Amino acid sequence: MSEGSRPAGPVPPQEVQAVAIVGAGVIGAGWAAHFLRMGYDVTAWDPGRGAAGRLAALVDAAWPTLERLGLRPGAAQERLRFARDLPDAVAGAGFVQESAPEVLAAKVDLLATLDAVTPPDVVISSSTSGFAMSEMAIAAENRGRFVVGHPFNPPYLIPLVEIVGGQDTDPWAVAWAEKFYTHAGKVCLTMDREVPGFVGNRLQEALWREALHMIDSGQATVQQIDDSIIYGPGLRWALMGPMLTFHLAGGQGGMAHMLDHFGPALLEPWTRLTAPALTPRLRDLVVAGVDAAVGETTVTELERRRDDFLTDLLLLLDKHRRA
Amino acid sequence: MSEGSRPAGPVPPQEVQAVAIVGAGVIGAGWAAHFLRMGYDVTAWDPGRGAAGRLAALVDAAWPTLERLGLRPGAAQERLRFARDLPDAVAGAGFVQESAPEVLAAKVDLLATLDAVTPPDVVISSSTSGFAMSEMAIAAENRGRFVVGHPFNPPYLIPLVEIVGGQDTDPWAVAWAEKFYTHAGKVCLTMDREVPGFVGNRLQEALWREALHMIDSGQATVQQIDDSIIYGPGLRWALMGPMLTFHLAGGQGGMAHMLDHFGPALLEPWTRLTAPALTPRLRDLVVAGVDAAVGETTVTELERRRDDFLTDLLLLLDKHRRA
Repeated sequence: MSEGSRPAGPVPPQEVQAVAIVGAGVIGAGWAAHFLRMGYDVTAWDPGRGAAGRLAALVDAAWPTLERLGLRPGAAQERLRFARDLPDAVAGAGFVQESAPEVLAAKVDLLATLDAVTPPDVVISSSTSGFAMSEMAIAAENRGRFVVGHPFNPPYLIPLVEIVGGQDTDPWAVAWAEKFYTHAGKVCLTMDREVPGFVGNRLQEALWREALHMIDSGQATVQQIDDSIIYGPGLRWALMGPMLTFHLAGGQGGMAHMLDHFGPALLEPWTRLTAPALTPRLRDLVVAGVDAAVGETTVTELERRRDDFLTDLLLLLDKHRRA
Repeated sequence: MSEGSRPAGPVPPQEVQAVAIVGAGVIGAGWAAHFLRMGYDVTAWDPGRGAAGRLAALVDAAWPTLERLGLRPGAAQERLRFARDLPDAVAGAGFVQESAPEVLAAKVDLLATLDAVTPPDVVISSSTSGFAMSEMAIAAENRGRFVVGHPFNPPYLIPLVEIVGGQDTDPWAVAWAEKFYTHAGKVCLTMDREVPGFVGNRLQEALWREALHMIDSGQATVQQIDDSIIYGPGLRWALMGPMLTFHLAGGQGGMAHMLDHFGPALLEPWTRLTAPALTPRLRDLVVAGVDAAVGETTVTELERRRDDFLTDLLLLLDKHRRA
């Protein structure tokens, strides 16, 4: 298929009525709960023993939460069906979410099988935590419709989905997936190239690896690692990411002041990860990016928003910790 | 001073009435606001032009927030005083918090000067983001009373303070600081040795450096970096740190299953930070740490807590984003 072309077949993303869930472990079942909340028919398949029961139990446990967040019209737990086999799972589905175990060879086989039983104009998305679609789709014939749609656990509560195609993915499939996920209530981060580990996943992986190093070397305990995040930077990251957070660490001078002030700290051995050289180009790129992100909003206004949010968050955490 | 001994002088941590703030930029002023909320007399000093005005403005802006969180008996904005000079700032103070710019030579000079004008039994704590006290206290005479007390911005809202001594710090000073900060409403992470970059700071630095790499190489924009956190893992980190988060990624099998399942992913180039080898020893250390942290609490119960919290958090974020 040539770049930009698309088959006549695909249903418009907003007209999809049925979703197939392939692999119904923690992530697949979480996706099922999310799509049910959004008013889809959901057919799930998983070859694991007892998978149907675990899926039903997870959806059951999540339902009151989904109700609190708000159900789309027609959303019903009863619209979940466990399929007999893979062809039964994808029959009639306008979209397929694959969430099988993270084993490359198994993914390659599964995607090829899925490809053979699913109409070629249906987008198939993989929940892989980090494999590239270029590695996973190699045994499939219709490689143009395969994308990565990487969620965060639990998919029914964490909005982000990271979307990226492989070298043989058609651009229409990436665009279609982005529209579909957005319509289905997710927040999309779409990459224009294959980034190892994606973006959010890559950032959390850096933190996770540093934590493992510290535990390995006896510099911190598991409890200290977690405490250092939940009583520290983790509180800020629900509202503002690392860039905006450090914009405010610069006071009225913002990110530019922060980089000029703390730039030398990048040379310190504060993590095992060597920092990039803070060249004038990188400095300006970061400052310009923050400027674009905040627009006309002043540091003072951002501080007020942060403080209002953090105050509510601390009161909320206090309530939950006492519960 | 021999290990474990302490001068007769130091006032018990819970009897401190007055705190000196040395350096009143974003961090120092934030400390001032926190100590005012906690009912202390606060005397601040900063040689910068206009520092007194900026300090008053920050405390003024923060005050409604502090009121919402709850003021200690006697807490009053009027108990803030801007000092004439350094000796005036520390006169009568039972504790000194230093938050000068992050320049090592300047810190060395300032701590020596502070040492000379402050009674030797008063603990002096530095807000440094990463210098070791062993590097900073070298020009001071009474090096036993110097500790690092590293806060997160803003110190009046983020509870965590990372405490560590230097090679010449007396153990009593570290213990005193921990008791004092705890009494003053902070959550303490006390290290038993000097860890470069501390713990929470080190973890956020790993994430920050990975972000800079991605921006530098064009793999992600500033906006994508922030979005990937605030709509993704950042939501989870306010309640559960990276270790407990991944405990739940393992389903009913918890951290043990997670490490066995995703362990191979540590070999993937998902960040520029090479992971430690996942030896059986490290695996068991992590699993045991999580077991100790969660105690008798089941995965199902933790999932319920997480979901309850995330639901409230999403509703809260929605309210703040619409405002």
